Amino acid sequence: MAKKASSSSPRTDPPAPADAFVWTRKDLLGLDELSAQEILHVLDTAGSFEEVSTRSIKKVPALRGKVVALLFFEDSTRTRMSFELAASRLSADTLQMSAKGSSVTKGETTLDTARNIAAMGVDVLVIRHSQSGAPHMLARQMPESIINAGDGQHEHPTQALLDMYTIRQRLGGIEGLTVAIVGDIAHSRVARSNILGLRKLGARVIVVGPPTLVPGAITAMGCEISHSLDDVLGEVDVINMLRIQFERFSSNLFPSVREYSQSYGLNSQRLKRCRKDVLVMHPGPINRGVELTSDVADGPNSCILQQVTNGLAIRMAVLYLVTQGNR
Amino acid sequence: MAKKASSSSPRTDPPAPADAFVWTRKDLLGLDELSAQEILHVLDTAGSFEEVSTRSIKKVPALRGKVVALLFFEDSTRTRMSFELAASRLSADTLQMSAKGSSVTKGETTLDTARNIAAMGVDVLVIRHSQSGAPHMLARQMPESIINAGDGQHEHPTQALLDMYTIRQRLGGIEGLTVAIVGDIAHSRVARSNILGLRKLGARVIVVGPPTLVPGAITAMGCEISHSLDDVLGEVDVINMLRIQFERFSSNLFPSVREYSQSYGLNSQRLKRCRKDVLVMHPGPINRGVELTSDVADGPNSCILQQVTNGLAIRMAVLYLVTQGNR
Amino acid sequence: MAKKASSSSPRTDPPAPADAFVWTRKDLLGLDELSAQEILHVLDTAGSFEEVSTRSIKKVPALRGKVVALLFFEDSTRTRMSFELAASRLSADTLQMSAKGSSVTKGETTLDTARNIAAMGVDVLVIRHSQSGAPHMLARQMPESIINAGDGQHEHPTQALLDMYTIRQRLGGIEGLTVAIVGDIAHSRVARSNILGLRKLGARVIVVGPPTLVPGAITAMGCEISHSLDDVLGEVDVINMLRIQFERFSSNLFPSVREYSQSYGLNSQRLKRCRKDVLVMHPGPINRGVELTSDVADGPNSCILQQVTNGLAIRMAVLYLVTQGNR
Repeated sequence: MAKKASSSSPRTDPPAPADAFVWTRKDLLGLDELSAQEILHVLDTAGSFEEVSTRSIKKVPALRGKVVALLFFEDSTRTRMSFELAASRLSADTLQMSAKGSSVTKGETTLDTARNIAAMGVDVLVIRHSQSGAPHMLARQMPESIINAGDGQHEHPTQALLDMYTIRQRLGGIEGLTVAIVGDIAHSRVARSNILGLRKLGARVIVVGPPTLVPGAITAMGCEISHSLDDVLGEVDVINMLRIQFERFSSNLFPSVREYSQSYGLNSQRLKRCRKDVLVMHPGPINRGVELTSDVADGPNSCILQQVTNGLAIRMAVLYLVTQGNR
Repeated sequence: MAKKASSSSPRTDPPAPADAFVWTRKDLLGLDELSAQEILHVLDTAGSFEEVSTRSIKKVPALRGKVVALLFFEDSTRTRMSFELAASRLSADTLQMSAKGSSVTKGETTLDTARNIAAMGVDVLVIRHSQSGAPHMLARQMPESIINAGDGQHEHPTQALLDMYTIRQRLGGIEGLTVAIVGDIAHSRVARSNILGLRKLGARVIVVGPPTLVPGAITAMGCEISHSLDDVLGEVDVINMLRIQFERFSSNLFPSVREYSQSYGLNSQRLKRCRKDVLVMHPGPINRGVELTSDVADGPNSCILQQVTNGLAIRMAVLYLVTQGNR
Repeated sequence: MAKKASSSSPRTDPPAPADAFVWTRKDLLGLDELSAQEILHVLDTAGSFEEVSTRSIKKVPALRGKVVALLFFEDSTRTRMSFELAASRLSADTLQMSAKGSSVTKGETTLDTARNIAAMGVDVLVIRHSQSGAPHMLARQMPESIINAGDGQHEHPTQALLDMYTIRQRLGGIEGLTVAIVGDIAHSRVARSNILGLRKLGARVIVVGPPTLVPGAITAMGCEISHSLDDVLGEVDVINMLRIQFERFSSNLFPSVREYSQSYGLNSQRLKRCRKDVLVMHPGPINRGVELTSDVADGPNSCILQQVTNGLAIRMAVLYLVTQGNR
């Protein structure tokens, strides 16, 4: 169902899920719990929603009269906007709570806050929280649908889903690809969700970064480790460059921003040593000149803005599926 | 018209307002100004809106094309969200102004701010303000409908209306009941609006708290005073536990949080000494272990989340009625 | 097409633009780039939208399914609310980003932020930015429509358009009028956009203020300078009083608020020396007793709230036209 872009190296996906496949989960908590078939079903559903965003009237009535609450206990403009727009494109009403200045959260447990907002007649709660596992705890205790929009250093499933959607769109499939994820692996929920999902769909994953930012135990997730970006350039089909959090530099995990950029930044010299159609990804926002030079970020291998566009389709699919799974 | 839950102690309401009753107020400012008949009319109207929130498509077109502005000069996530959702469930558009970082309020009077926002074509202004009487001042000077969402230590009418709606729903009526309101009576607009409304509907009201937080003059509102929660447990049909504002403890009005909780907190021991179907209420957010222990807050006597749900129906009713009263 | 209020001094506009006129701009960046014909076309289009705001159901489906993003890199409650309501009155969805606490902007260029939000499927970006020229830069680099909602000390085109709309509505036309703009001309984007627009439509413009706040070079824009408000009162058809930014007083540009008010504030004595139907304008929010006394602000010559109301019609027109110009 998903549109596949023409590409110089088409690959074949696993067979599309049978039409008979029925999504049964009321929540989307992480890639960890999803089967390969479920992941592909989300991508296929997103494929059918992608077309909506190209219409002159970008709306479908699928969730009309439903309410989606965006509970961002941790701030995130970009992900919040994407979920908000996805919900309104499905004709749902949205309700927002941001952490700052919220009287709801004063002295109140996360569960009480969520239950109170749900009691207003909310169908789906999209949760971002600094504590790993917070959405899972809510999902166990509440009948409403819970979507994890990023929990601590644990998972960020919709980001990984939109990344996989974009890879499949540009390269025709995921199985058999080699994907490098570069940067602060230790603290990245984007990395964790990507590793889990890519492995389930049959990709090889190499995580790349300095030893202080790449824990050895990560290989238990089925990925390989490299401490040299230069060593892996020749092998990769996709390079996903993680955003560097500058506040970590002061913590002595990095020598300096400049040194990090020299060892692990992607520039045109390094790009020349990759295969011609290598896909350059970044979850945004970009630190230009740090993770990526501008010529790479804006060049033909980059799919960074396409990732953002695809995020809408993925979030529409996820909002739609969890309400279907909660009847 | 309101649904009455089956209950072990059904009571009879005053006769329902005749169908011929016509709401004529353009504003909802407080329980002080409402007649018993008007209060019952709001509750009955909420009863007919309650059903909307149980539909798959939770929307009615009653206020389509109308604009409801939420002017929160004082922050309130919970009440704001409830009004926002009530407005959108009636198909109105909403417009929000929060106090923080608002350029509207710089050097501008409250009346100028309200008039300017109204001049954009707003039909209803929902006002929360730290100054007692601010909504009343606006209502006198402006042709638009004004709803008081809490003014200083004065009134919070929609909270009292949803409390009374919930009591009637659970216990079948209000007349003849004994209701205890426990906590910081002196500073509570929730207490004031509840006392006014409950008395008008024929309930007996006992306010309970330490002498520093219960002004003797409050008996002029028709309620009784007790400084011992234990003394009144055997008499009450409803216990409404007010939220404690921790910042007041430092002001020497309370000895300590622990001491307050021991004297005025509701726990399972105290609950056993009440009648079996006593109703436990709280306007939220709860400080678990202070006003209420968790077993009581989450137990069968508690209607705390039902209060939140009913808040939607009450706010839909109020938004609907004031626009009807402003034709 | 615009409704003309009856007035004691009707004047004649230039002939209305032929029906055949087709708006071709995808952006609205400033009055500087617009021809007189284009300005009049915006005013005429606003005239046809003004009627929508008087309907019981204040909505038209013109932009249904379109998305308008409000990117306020600099805060503005009032202008943001006006654009938000204009968009929803046209049935568009809106998406908001405010500068404060926005994770989008961390280390990200303005262009990257705008492009990322646009990639979500946004049709129109309304930009307020502290840097002069920021909307112009975005308009050159992005295919989406850009509307300038105020850029640095450069332009604020929708404010000038609503001012001109209001003048035409109240006085029947603009050509041949004498308009005084009073206050901090040097730092005012409202003044700049008004001067540009009024001159193009054939009005005489006198800017009035103390020498420290009125740069001599401003005469290059075709206006005259006066340092005495009293000197010009007898000549003017319109007095537009700019808002004083108190933070500038400490910078020694003004002697004191009181002294400023005595020399350049409008009060009833000064109003008596103007022609009887002189129009008093202010972009808001008013500092009562500084730029204007209350009797003048609330008197029959004032059209301050009408300006706010007309702002909706102007912003509906601009949102509509730029999407028409971007097909």
